[in-house]
Amino acid sequence: MQPGTKSGFELDARLESNSVPVMWLGLCELRLVNDGRWIRLMLVPQRTGVEEIHELSPLDQAMLTFEICMVSKALKHVAQCDTVNMSIACNAIRQLRVDMIARSKGDAGWPDTVWDDEPCKPRDRKSQLALLDKLRAAM
Amino acid sequence: MQPGTKSGFELDARLESNSVPVMWLGLCELRLVNDGRWIRLMLVPQRTGVEEIHELSPLDQAMLTFEICMVSKALKHVAQCDTVNMSIACNAIRQLRVDMIARSKGDAGWPDTVWDDEPCKPRDRKSQLALLDKLRAAM
Repeated sequence: MQPGTKSGFELDARLESNSVPVMWLGLCELRLVNDGRWIRLMLVPQRTGVEEIHELSPLDQAMLTFEICMVSKALKHVAQCDTVNMSIACNAIRQLRVDMIARSKGDAGWPDTVWDDEPCKPRDRKSQLALLDKLRAAM
Repeated sequence: MQPGTKSGFELDARLESNSVPVMWLGLCELRLVNDGRWIRLMLVPQRTGVEEIHELSPLDQAMLTFEICMVSKALKHVAQCDTVNMSIACNAIRQLRVDMIARSKGDAGWPDTVWDDEPCKPRDRKSQLALLDKLRAAM
């Protein structure tokens, strides 16, 4: 079990294979999606069997908000983007998570959302490690 | 000014023309998007000049979370859907709002997101009023 992982919590295998851990927060595991085109993060509340935001306890809802705002601010700072898009869509994979992506005017997809883009080639190891360092330092 | 509207707050004209008011909550104006294909709601915090969730004050962040969870639960109940998708994407229109849409397995678009669908014909007046009544009763 990774340090910070809540006992009994299991991350969906498809989400795990498509991303790498950034850090563990009070409620969520924060992960970077393996897609070299975008800086895309995923906040996964470490709670078993929760599919909708309103199914979290009031305390967990408050913690999630706090962590969303912290990550959104850090992402905007690191990516130097125009805005942060956010999505909850537990359609195919029924595990609650919040996706966040750095977006800027004129990027490949602007002004539409890009949540359903097929995952693209991951960053090379050096770029990935540098990005993870920057994200951790900004939190 | 509508009852419940915060003084000085102005809803973007494009958002206003594409939706109708459901009710005013403590922080947000809750609106129903004019698209007969989906039950799609929009929560707009009544705060001027806010484009990102982390720009809200901590109290407003807490209120937004409370209102998101209340609306998500009501939407799931009224729509009898499988899940509620949620999106923040202030790309073309730079006013913070949370979009929510009722989704079910096998709907037109499943399992993708449908945020960028062109708005379709609105509901007829009778269906719209019935839906608004149901949503208000569930809140």
